[in-house]
Amino acid sequence: MKSPEIYHSQIPARSTGGAGGRRPLLPIASDAFLFFSGAVAALLLVWTFSTFSNSQPHSTTTNFDTQISDPKLSVKDDVSCDVSSNGYNHRYDPSDPNFYDDPDFGYTIDKPVRNWDEKRKEWFKHHPSFGSGSEERVLVLSGSQSGPCSNPIGDHLLLRFFKNKVDYCRIHGYDIFYNNVLLHPQMHTYWAKIPAVRAAMLAHPEAEWIWWVDSDAAFTDMDFKLPLDRYKNHNFVVHGWPKLIYEKKSWTSLNAGVFLIRNSQWALDFMDVWSGMGPQTPNYEKWGEILRETCKDKIFKESDDQTGLVYLLLKEKEKWGDKIYVEGEYYFEGYWLEIVETLKNITARYNEVERGVSRLRRRHGEKVSEAYSMIWDEYLKDAGYGKFSWRRPFITHFTGCQPCSGKHNQMYSGQSCWDAMLKALNFADNQVLRNYGFVHRDLLDSASVTPLPFDFPA
Amino acid sequence: MKSPEIYHSQIPARSTGGAGGRRPLLPIASDAFLFFSGAVAALLLVWTFSTFSNSQPHSTTTNFDTQISDPKLSVKDDVSCDVSSNGYNHRYDPSDPNFYDDPDFGYTIDKPVRNWDEKRKEWFKHHPSFGSGSEERVLVLSGSQSGPCSNPIGDHLLLRFFKNKVDYCRIHGYDIFYNNVLLHPQMHTYWAKIPAVRAAMLAHPEAEWIWWVDSDAAFTDMDFKLPLDRYKNHNFVVHGWPKLIYEKKSWTSLNAGVFLIRNSQWALDFMDVWSGMGPQTPNYEKWGEILRETCKDKIFKESDDQTGLVYLLLKEKEKWGDKIYVEGEYYFEGYWLEIVETLKNITARYNEVERGVSRLRRRHGEKVSEAYSMIWDEYLKDAGYGKFSWRRPFITHFTGCQPCSGKHNQMYSGQSCWDAMLKALNFADNQVLRNYGFVHRDLLDSASVTPLPFDFPA
Repeated sequence: MKSPEIYHSQIPARSTGGAGGRRPLLPIASDAFLFFSGAVAALLLVWTFSTFSNSQPHSTTTNFDTQISDPKLSVKDDVSCDVSSNGYNHRYDPSDPNFYDDPDFGYTIDKPVRNWDEKRKEWFKHHPSFGSGSEERVLVLSGSQSGPCSNPIGDHLLLRFFKNKVDYCRIHGYDIFYNNVLLHPQMHTYWAKIPAVRAAMLAHPEAEWIWWVDSDAAFTDMDFKLPLDRYKNHNFVVHGWPKLIYEKKSWTSLNAGVFLIRNSQWALDFMDVWSGMGPQTPNYEKWGEILRETCKDKIFKESDDQTGLVYLLLKEKEKWGDKIYVEGEYYFEGYWLEIVETLKNITARYNEVERGVSRLRRRHGEKVSEAYSMIWDEYLKDAGYGKFSWRRPFITHFTGCQPCSGKHNQMYSGQSCWDAMLKALNFADNQVLRNYGFVHRDLLDSASVTPLPFDFPA
Repeated sequence: MKSPEIYHSQIPARSTGGAGGRRPLLPIASDAFLFFSGAVAALLLVWTFSTFSNSQPHSTTTNFDTQISDPKLSVKDDVSCDVSSNGYNHRYDPSDPNFYDDPDFGYTIDKPVRNWDEKRKEWFKHHPSFGSGSEERVLVLSGSQSGPCSNPIGDHLLLRFFKNKVDYCRIHGYDIFYNNVLLHPQMHTYWAKIPAVRAAMLAHPEAEWIWWVDSDAAFTDMDFKLPLDRYKNHNFVVHGWPKLIYEKKSWTSLNAGVFLIRNSQWALDFMDVWSGMGPQTPNYEKWGEILRETCKDKIFKESDDQTGLVYLLLKEKEKWGDKIYVEGEYYFEGYWLEIVETLKNITARYNEVERGVSRLRRRHGEKVSEAYSMIWDEYLKDAGYGKFSWRRPFITHFTGCQPCSGKHNQMYSGQSCWDAMLKALNFADNQVLRNYGFVHRDLLDSASVTPLPFDFPA
């Protein structure tokens, strides 16, 4: 595979272009003050560059030039050596010992972690490029079994569901991790997400929130974003109906297939207690009984994560309840059977609005889509949220369909599940594809798209 | 779905937290500054904000606060109102007309685009938060058919291949778009990527490079990054062997399943010519003949994109060749049959190195993995690249396996293909999973992982 001399250039150990040089916090500030004792004007300029540089990767090329032109400004402990095009310094992990260097620190649920909030704070101190916007940083987490699905179209549907999540994350700048393995061999099915969420928290100290989204849930409003402000005093958000939880004590009073959990010590402690009802414990059977006593409508005998969550809200409210936000205002996740038939009318309403507002028909780069979501908000004021609204449902969850196993709830046919999934996925895909110039005219026809004419509603 | 008053808070139209997060450095420095000299500082701050707020989204919260406290400082056309946690301003698209507002501008291959380089420059001018690091910005593009695969495990493999790409992109901060639709109904199979690449270029003016990676190719070195410096004078990079191209004139002298193409007018013009050999043209059959005359070893009669590329290198070298970099130095993509058997030895060599270097065994946040790739580089100096090297192959391409259709090359069995894919995917997955604390002990066992003990080599 050797190629002629003409192509035989040395390959660099790593592309050294980087995004240019960012400079660390402290050296700069001190540079700045040294400069004050010198000639003021020129130094103010350098100070300006340098002050901005540590929190503003976007000025890095400038800084780098400045550094080159002035060796005195060269940086110790290469915090600024390289920044990726998204502004993070992926290449900087200072040698100062941190929690990862503690032999007792582990990713498995049997290794308790202490003072995680302080440890995260410390991590940020040593990784300043991840500081800005950290409170809004969300890591989306999903996953499915490690082997092929028994339902013949199961894996195809999982591929489409995963693509849908990746699209949402790309548009909003979120990271996503899809997990195909059981991190705890006994924590199967709905229990598998807990060790995954836990490991993701510890592997991603930079993320404030871990957002578990089941593999059979699709984002059906690509514009909508979590109202994180609303959750600022909470650590766990789940879709549910307090009346059903506290009065009916129903195991379906909430849905544990989608939840938002703050990367925090609270979350680690909570998951320790929650997973304590799981199949990996000697108390698994006992918990099955307790949960059925607690939620009389629970149909199967095994302890499950969802009923476990209801139990903790009912029996340990004072301990956990204050930090758990039961979201019922919008489709944090919604039952597909209630949603899918509304998509046609919703599309018509959106097109109707769009016909009247040229700004909404304006084409744009995908990366600035949120600018148009904000314009949409003005026109969605009266749309409402959730059931009976004409706003796009945020997340459509195919609870009961079991795309991978195919063992769907017998109250509906498999075909109605698969058709509904394609409808929802193509409904979402139309919101993505329009920024590439195309549209699915028929939501049941995944294969066909037509070019979107200029200045026309989708 | 209405919930009791206690949960009945107004939902904000959109989370208004913005970049939020930790207190930026600027106020601190500027306090000191104001203390030093009030009047000068105020003036400089005005200048500073107006000059920098555009290019430093990471300071936008600060700027925004300052703007509120001092109307004189307000920045025209809300550039700094909101920035996502990754530093881009996804919410800012100024009203100034741009190329998207031109009715003649279209995403389909029949709508020629002119002066694209100038149009991109102009776009950056109006979207400063995307300016920094733009030369290094890569959008990974892949895709597969819109319907289920005929090979029973095809979709499962595609899901695993896609997850592998998403993992690589998350680690390095790249965007990825997976396309499931034929953007041009006649441009099927290997021709489908051209309209997809074209649409992606126009939808992503912020991306300097579009990197097409076939659905059946896996990243098997999660550390390695494209040596973009090497390609700075080129617009198209493909894996190939100049001797085979220019002397043997073989249609397999390069592989068109993975290529890097600069988002540029050159690329649009090149793709116009390249796609001119495609099935959507009246000349398709004629091109089939021409290509077979040009590359005598071409086995099938239809015109294909790969032989078309060889043709353009041979017949229009002066027109296109100078800007096409034929990469033969490392596994820009590599033939799986040549690679898979080497993975075991490569793993052993890496573990051997790791046993001797504690820094390489150090645990860390996934987001700073590149810091450890850089340390690895010191120990991989003698590993070589590509065939006969013990460096991890960058991309393993399952050419001939056809995971989706299952119509694999008859020189090997389907099983040997699927096994090799699982080996390669789990080999890659081990590089990802270790940052979550786990490892596959057996590359053929996708289901089982074991916790990675502290300070042990994988």
